[in-house]
Amino acid sequence: MSVQSSHQSEHPAPARSSVTVLGLGPMGRALAGAFLAAGVRTTVWNRTPGRDRELVAQGAAGASTVQEAVTASELVVVCVVNYDASDSLLRNDEVTTALKGRTLLNLTADTPDRSRDSAQWAAEHGIRYLDGAIMTPTTTIGTPHAVLLHAGPADLYAEHKPVLDALGGTHTHLGEDIGRAAAYDIALLDIFWTAMAGYAHALAVAKAEGIGAGELVPFAKGIADILPPIFEGTAAEVDRGTYSGEDNPITSAASSMAHIIHASESHGIDAGVMRAAEGLARRVIGLGHGKDGFVRIAEVLGRR
Amino acid sequence: MSVQSSHQSEHPAPARSSVTVLGLGPMGRALAGAFLAAGVRTTVWNRTPGRDRELVAQGAAGASTVQEAVTASELVVVCVVNYDASDSLLRNDEVTTALKGRTLLNLTADTPDRSRDSAQWAAEHGIRYLDGAIMTPTTTIGTPHAVLLHAGPADLYAEHKPVLDALGGTHTHLGEDIGRAAAYDIALLDIFWTAMAGYAHALAVAKAEGIGAGELVPFAKGIADILPPIFEGTAAEVDRGTYSGEDNPITSAASSMAHIIHASESHGIDAGVMRAAEGLARRVIGLGHGKDGFVRIAEVLGRR
Repeated sequence: MSVQSSHQSEHPAPARSSVTVLGLGPMGRALAGAFLAAGVRTTVWNRTPGRDRELVAQGAAGASTVQEAVTASELVVVCVVNYDASDSLLRNDEVTTALKGRTLLNLTADTPDRSRDSAQWAAEHGIRYLDGAIMTPTTTIGTPHAVLLHAGPADLYAEHKPVLDALGGTHTHLGEDIGRAAAYDIALLDIFWTAMAGYAHALAVAKAEGIGAGELVPFAKGIADILPPIFEGTAAEVDRGTYSGEDNPITSAASSMAHIIHASESHGIDAGVMRAAEGLARRVIGLGHGKDGFVRIAEVLGRR
Repeated sequence: MSVQSSHQSEHPAPARSSVTVLGLGPMGRALAGAFLAAGVRTTVWNRTPGRDRELVAQGAAGASTVQEAVTASELVVVCVVNYDASDSLLRNDEVTTALKGRTLLNLTADTPDRSRDSAQWAAEHGIRYLDGAIMTPTTTIGTPHAVLLHAGPADLYAEHKPVLDALGGTHTHLGEDIGRAAAYDIALLDIFWTAMAGYAHALAVAKAEGIGAGELVPFAKGIADILPPIFEGTAAEVDRGTYSGEDNPITSAASSMAHIIHASESHGIDAGVMRAAEGLARRVIGLGHGKDGFVRIAEVLGRR
């Protein structure tokens, strides 16, 4: 599978390009704002009225129905809370008919199976379909810091890439498997939300020990700083199927996790996340891999 | 409480300074190696014989008993698996007597209550006591990347700081509360091991979706890169007691976490860590804080 990344174009969007944005939550508003700022003719719609006020003041066309919004542009971008929500907007006769021959890019986050199901529905209705995932916060949209992942037909992606460049940052086409952007999204958000759960828990434990969040944060940032090289080194181990625990065997990790649980619970602070994580480590040790490194967990979790 | 950090001294350790390192696991060997490299007279001991071979070849004195090792130096550094192990080395008549009047720096990781208990034992036996925590991997010891935290009497720390500088990097004295280094250590390792559990799980889910670890890792590193500013911003919210979820309410996080669990379990991959984390988010939402940001979890976890 080829992965092609490209950075934001320096050029403005092509003349007379047009886009519709369905869903004006914080991310939808950021997307529409970036399209407008790049000079793309932008039509917007949201279920709850009034969310388009600022965008209309900036030059967006506010549509009063989904059908009207879809009809206004060749490219329709949908960004709502999940695929239940996007299906409820799109999967009715009027909208499906209006979408025929147009390109639908679904930037809504959900599971890979929902993306694959949507692609099948789109194919059955003559709708050209791309699936994407936005990996960075709303504030990055339209800046060099945005990171977007895309999946679907390469030629269709290439056709719309000039307009998508209005969103800024780095766009990566992950391949033609339509579920691939969602699969990356799931895996990456798994890392993100688990890390955030650890951070929130650490702040609670620190506070119980008289340490303010502001006191802990310089060191917490230091912990985040050591993750990228550890991710890189351990990813290579996982791909090779060798798990060197020489300097840091999973038995050490389990011991450390037990200390964290003890300290947390001694303050009456729930340690369920760490208890679940320690359970994985203990399971790996119980399977005879105690001298291996921590990411041996990935292999054991994935066993069929 | 004052926090004083200082970077590695450019100067070699003071002439005739001496240190004993008890425990020659990977970290103990790294510590002893850095002391030797800085020209500190270093004595080493390990329960399992033979671990001192390379260090002795580099000029360390290999002691055959703990008592002999302790008697050799004014500063005794202990770095073993936990305080059960360090207590078993130190809390007997011969060693306790040999330690009298010397400084014991315990770099063993455990809970704050174990550090406080050890300080009391040390005071009862005329042993000068410092407690520390090593926040970076063995490979950083003796380099500018090492991060060490210290707690205990400020004058005692100042007295031994010139020798400790041999370990490289940044040393921070967190204050006289002897449990404080362990408390920071617990909170920071909480972040680290939780994040690593998320990463290992993400690699398993990615593999089930046909994505190799090496394919995911550039994006995984991108996730780690966005953590420091998020840690900083949300720490300020926690200290203020205001939790702005404007751009990313905890309801969105819970929705995302549910997708991750669904995708994981649809591949037969245990999602216990994320289930526990989602449970925290759902609890915060159930308490009426659904519009708040994710770190509201810290406040709810810490409620008495």
